[in-house]
Amino acid sequence: DPTLKLFSCSSNPELAHSIAKCIGVELGNVTMSRFSDGEIHIQLDDSVRGSDVYVVQSTSAPVNDHLIELLVMVDALKRASAKTINVVIPYYGYARQDRKARSRDPITAKLVANLIETAGTHRVIAMDLHAMQIQGFFDIPVDHLLGVPILGDYFHEKQLESPVVVSPDHGGVVRARRLADTLQAPLAIIDKRRPEPGVVEVMNIIGDVKGRTAILIDDIIDTAGTIALAANALKKAGAGDIYACCTHPVLSGPAIERLEASSIKEIVVTDTIPLRQPCGTDKVKVLSVAPLLAEAIVRVHEQQSLSSLFEPHV
Amino acid sequence: DPTLKLFSCSSNPELAHSIAKCIGVELGNVTMSRFSDGEIHIQLDDSVRGSDVYVVQSTSAPVNDHLIELLVMVDALKRASAKTINVVIPYYGYARQDRKARSRDPITAKLVANLIETAGTHRVIAMDLHAMQIQGFFDIPVDHLLGVPILGDYFHEKQLESPVVVSPDHGGVVRARRLADTLQAPLAIIDKRRPEPGVVEVMNIIGDVKGRTAILIDDIIDTAGTIALAANALKKAGAGDIYACCTHPVLSGPAIERLEASSIKEIVVTDTIPLRQPCGTDKVKVLSVAPLLAEAIVRVHEQQSLSSLFEPHV
Ligand SMILES: Nc1ncnc2c1ncn2[C@@H]1O[C@H](COP(=O)(O)O)[C@@H](O)[C@H]1O
Ligand SMILES: Nc1ncnc2c1ncn2[C@@H]1O[C@H](COP(=O)(O)O)[C@@H](O)[C@H]1O
Repeated sequence: DPTLKLFSCSSNPELAHSIAKCIGVELGNVTMSRFSDGEIHIQLDDSVRGSDVYVVQSTSAPVNDHLIELLVMVDALKRASAKTINVVIPYYGYARQDRKARSRDPITAKLVANLIETAGTHRVIAMDLHAMQIQGFFDIPVDHLLGVPILGDYFHEKQLESPVVVSPDHGGVVRARRLADTLQAPLAIIDKRRPEPGVVEVMNIIGDVKGRTAILIDDIIDTAGTIALAANALKKAGAGDIYACCTHPVLSGPAIERLEASSIKEIVVTDTIPLRQPCGTDKVKVLSVAPLLAEAIVRVHEQQSLSSLFEPHV
Repeated sequence: DPTLKLFSCSSNPELAHSIAKCIGVELGNVTMSRFSDGEIHIQLDDSVRGSDVYVVQSTSAPVNDHLIELLVMVDALKRASAKTINVVIPYYGYARQDRKARSRDPITAKLVANLIETAGTHRVIAMDLHAMQIQGFFDIPVDHLLGVPILGDYFHEKQLESPVVVSPDHGGVVRARRLADTLQAPLAIIDKRRPEPGVVEVMNIIGDVKGRTAILIDDIIDTAGTIALAANALKKAGAGDIYACCTHPVLSGPAIERLEASSIKEIVVTDTIPLRQPCGTDKVKVLSVAPLLAEAIVRVHEQQSLSSLFEPHV
């Protein structure tokens, strides 16, 4: 049987180390450096000939550097005669550019899929792709894992009083439904409407939140604008404690200030994207996806089904 | 006949404007911006349906940003129904990673070629690719222009006294030979040898430079280490004035300091890569490749031969 070899690119070395520990392997040795002009230079220090190689890289910011680094890594592995090249992309950058929202838009999420394939990738393991359709952008197998079981376990253990799961928009209802099922909680939806162009959005809440502990869930929290406004609306509607959770803490621009200033009690995220250190708020709680990704890698390597990974553990 | 439309990405807008002026067209309107998390967003503001589109972008530093921007631009043009997409790459980044110098090296110059094709490019117009072999990395037509005629014209007009053209290494002899022919000057070659591993390199000069005006020529001046050492060796060997020239002024790291401190009188470069402003030395003279690229674009568009563009004008 070909050996499993695990490598890390530079976006998220802590996560890669945790995955290696969970699997019980050492990370492969690779030297990543920059030439004086900023060009990436990758040198594999271990043989990968005939191996099944897994490379961990989130294409989080700086997205273009992390993406090109991943592609160069795949190129190096291909030319070093790896048997299969499996890329583990905990956070898939450019996922929100997944359709022509306006005419003459690029579809960058599809371009990225093409680039990853062209470099020589045989399989992708991803988590909470912004749109499920992105799986179909690839012509190679994509194993698509979800953060909801991990977030669900955490909130289940917390034993919150009369929880209600809240989707901040209509696009996230399926995800919120899953979390609500896990917690055996009801569901509410924030219904944004702009009465007239140029007029401030109105946030209606569909469902009952009064006196309940609200858990907002999204796939990505980026500038935290949506989630902070949603928390506001929940507070006004008489919700009790307000929690927010997401898989991918992009947290760019004013995100930390907004979360700190909001009425959100705790923001629960995963480590698909490392937080800046120091993070700037102690409201953020990080759960690790390492055990899940490790299990997925082992099952892929042993050609076992991944379907039970989608079930909550509770 | 399909219309010629010219667009600029963000690496070298001055050059793109000059090319537009030479051709006598307006640059196409495109909005290039960044989302809060650093992801590139491109919006074409003009229709390109049925047009022959030319996009000017050097993949100079920051190389990964400029490369991804070019790919996203090509994706947008493709989806906006451009008839042909022609990318004009005055400086091709990653060109020096063109072979496996060590085992398990990537071949990033080839990866980049694949990425550019995958995005939907129909043709490439490039200048002084570090290795001629890079043309063969593409399966689409590549028009490969040379900077030597431009540099040659400049030195010809200078009417230097008893010039000698000097190649700083054996890899650059063909280029130096071309310049020497243009100037009807003799050729010298700097022959670097490391007598033993760990010992400082010795620079022998093959050819006669004593009392002559030396013109060092290379394709890229990056950290200027090679060219500064070569100038030193020429001075020691009794050369008179020393000029240096190249097509691509990468000028990273200590380059400017080294050039300023060197015995080089003038460094003649082209505008394939814009200089930082202020550049930090007044020894640098910039010649424009805009007329050459404009002529190449027009000829490609009108399906005329480009071969006379390689001849010196003198
Ligand atoms: N990196 C990004 N940051 C913020 N907004 C983005 C980003 N990428 C795409 N978008 C926009 O987000 C919208 C898509 O989000 P959604 O409707 O949630 O799928 C589109 O209008 C995109 O223009
Ligand atoms: N961006 C870069 N900056 C400096 N050296 C590089 C760069 N890219 C590749 N190289 C190295 O340059 C050498 C190739 O240059 P050459 O022998 O002139 O073709 C190889 O040893 C490469 O590792």
